[in-house]
Amino acid sequence: MKKLKFKISLIIIILLFNSGLIFAQYDSTDPLPSWNDGKTKSAIIDFVISVTDQSGPLYVKPADRIATFDNDGTLWCEQPTIQLVYTFMRVKEMYPSHPEWKNEKIFTAIMDDDKAYIEEDYASGGKGLMQVLEATNTGMTVEAFQQEVLNFFKTAEHPKYKVPFTKVYYVPMLELINYLKANEFEVFICSGGGLDFMRAVSDEIYGIPTQNVIGSFGKAEYKIADGSSEIIKLPELILINDKTGKPVGIDYFIGRKPIFSVGNERTGGDIAMSTYCQSNKLPSIQLMVNHDDAVREYEYSEKDNASLNAAAKNGWNVVSMKNDWKKIFEFE
Amino acid sequence: MKKLKFKISLIIIILLFNSGLIFAQYDSTDPLPSWNDGKTKSAIIDFVISVTDQSGPLYVKPADRIATFDNDGTLWCEQPTIQLVYTFMRVKEMYPSHPEWKNEKIFTAIMDDDKAYIEEDYASGGKGLMQVLEATNTGMTVEAFQQEVLNFFKTAEHPKYKVPFTKVYYVPMLELINYLKANEFEVFICSGGGLDFMRAVSDEIYGIPTQNVIGSFGKAEYKIADGSSEIIKLPELILINDKTGKPVGIDYFIGRKPIFSVGNERTGGDIAMSTYCQSNKLPSIQLMVNHDDAVREYEYSEKDNASLNAAAKNGWNVVSMKNDWKKIFEFE
Repeated sequence: MKKLKFKISLIIIILLFNSGLIFAQYDSTDPLPSWNDGKTKSAIIDFVISVTDQSGPLYVKPADRIATFDNDGTLWCEQPTIQLVYTFMRVKEMYPSHPEWKNEKIFTAIMDDDKAYIEEDYASGGKGLMQVLEATNTGMTVEAFQQEVLNFFKTAEHPKYKVPFTKVYYVPMLELINYLKANEFEVFICSGGGLDFMRAVSDEIYGIPTQNVIGSFGKAEYKIADGSSEIIKLPELILINDKTGKPVGIDYFIGRKPIFSVGNERTGGDIAMSTYCQSNKLPSIQLMVNHDDAVREYEYSEKDNASLNAAAKNGWNVVSMKNDWKKIFEFE
Repeated sequence: MKKLKFKISLIIIILLFNSGLIFAQYDSTDPLPSWNDGKTKSAIIDFVISVTDQSGPLYVKPADRIATFDNDGTLWCEQPTIQLVYTFMRVKEMYPSHPEWKNEKIFTAIMDDDKAYIEEDYASGGKGLMQVLEATNTGMTVEAFQQEVLNFFKTAEHPKYKVPFTKVYYVPMLELINYLKANEFEVFICSGGGLDFMRAVSDEIYGIPTQNVIGSFGKAEYKIADGSSEIIKLPELILINDKTGKPVGIDYFIGRKPIFSVGNERTGGDIAMSTYCQSNKLPSIQLMVNHDDAVREYEYSEKDNASLNAAAKNGWNVVSMKNDWKKIFEFE
């Protein structure tokens, strides 16, 4: 009889476990194993516990648990900017069939790897680079573009790490995404990068479906021809989803303020998103990644230090890659 | 001992039931009780069963189960168009403080309920109505606009049914949305109506969160002032999410083709969405609502019958409100 009782108890425990009725909230395993213990990790976990505690004063219902993550330099390595590597590769592939590019300094600079000229163009507003992006990233169907992007990800390698670019995502951030999802957050990428570019790989790398990606996007038109029914990317920008464009992108694609935002310092691109998130009437948290690990990744900062100054002033959590992350890449 | 065994079995069954391991797929209750039995209802249920059957040839994984529903005339009554009722009400409220409107025929036509003039403007491209929409639906924060919209829904009544406009949704469609959600579809509204207008009530009426609403939208800018951090609606359209604009809106907001689309006849507004859905390489289904119930709702058709002709030609399922729907409104 005792043995039978034990069996019943065991069956019940197994079933409860399978049904997710126990252990869901009280899992004792570390949800963020690649994060070092410390104030950043504690701030994250304390926030998630407090907004998911139904009986607590900071409870936020699941429908309002919106999280937005920048991509370049926040979810994956931005040295070099991956979409620019792709774009320059495409310029080199397409150059022979575009004799008119010979008369455009930005195209010849790319062909000659004239980094100084490209950097100068970028620093002065990126007019030339915009022209290059239009020439290589538009004028085709979204599907054809994404096929090119997938081909690139299959073959290209990161210059420092010698791995495909799909492998230069940050492990601690993937853990954070999964931790938030497990706590009924809806997680969005909100990046200055191209919408269609990121969508080609967002599910494969981060498990984030296309509809949860927000990025820079341009005009498009619907075309029906030869029985196919496609969207053509046109060379006219609608939104640069960077800096003050990010809250606009969030409003277009989500329609509500996030309660959890994650960005990084480099260009001040995530200050407006963090401010917008913090203005949420619901409890919120902001993270700002600091690239301070010259050994395992890269060390760089903004010339005016605006992102970290804003973080200090507004109480955003600075994530030190050097100190907060036990591990940065899966391939380490 | 027998009694104990019975108890164990009972416990196991209850736990299995709670854990969703049984009965999830084989619930014998009708998932669409407001739909009459017939070929439309069968087509819907057969499709859902076939794409959710993991061992079947038409299986579609949950991540690809995207459904898009038009709103006006598909999810709720479009006689009259609710956003226009709102807009005309706002014109009347705002008229005294806008003396410059006295010189614009479209505004005086609204003040005088000159339906012939308004209809003529609409039929000839809606240039005047666009001006009215800009004057009443932009130039303020999204939040302030939605507060106005919520006030409207609290007070205004449908002229025929004498109920708030939040009650003129179609019960069979709400059942269909819930049936699809229960089968792991992600359901989007994809409407020609204004994005911010529908988002004010989409969750309350349909249980569809703001991020799953696609609609017509315009330029916006981020503004930070007096400690607030808001999005201002500007009077410049980006996308009219109607006709060939719908596949573009779907591409912007979702990034993939739906496998389930639902529209209605009246202006040909959903032909492109249905075609786009049907061009999905995955199994797909299209529904086109026919407003043929003069008694319980309204009876109307397109002058060129384009939507129903396209449905017949392409094998889309025509939903007869008269014959397919046992019940149309909750208040009946």
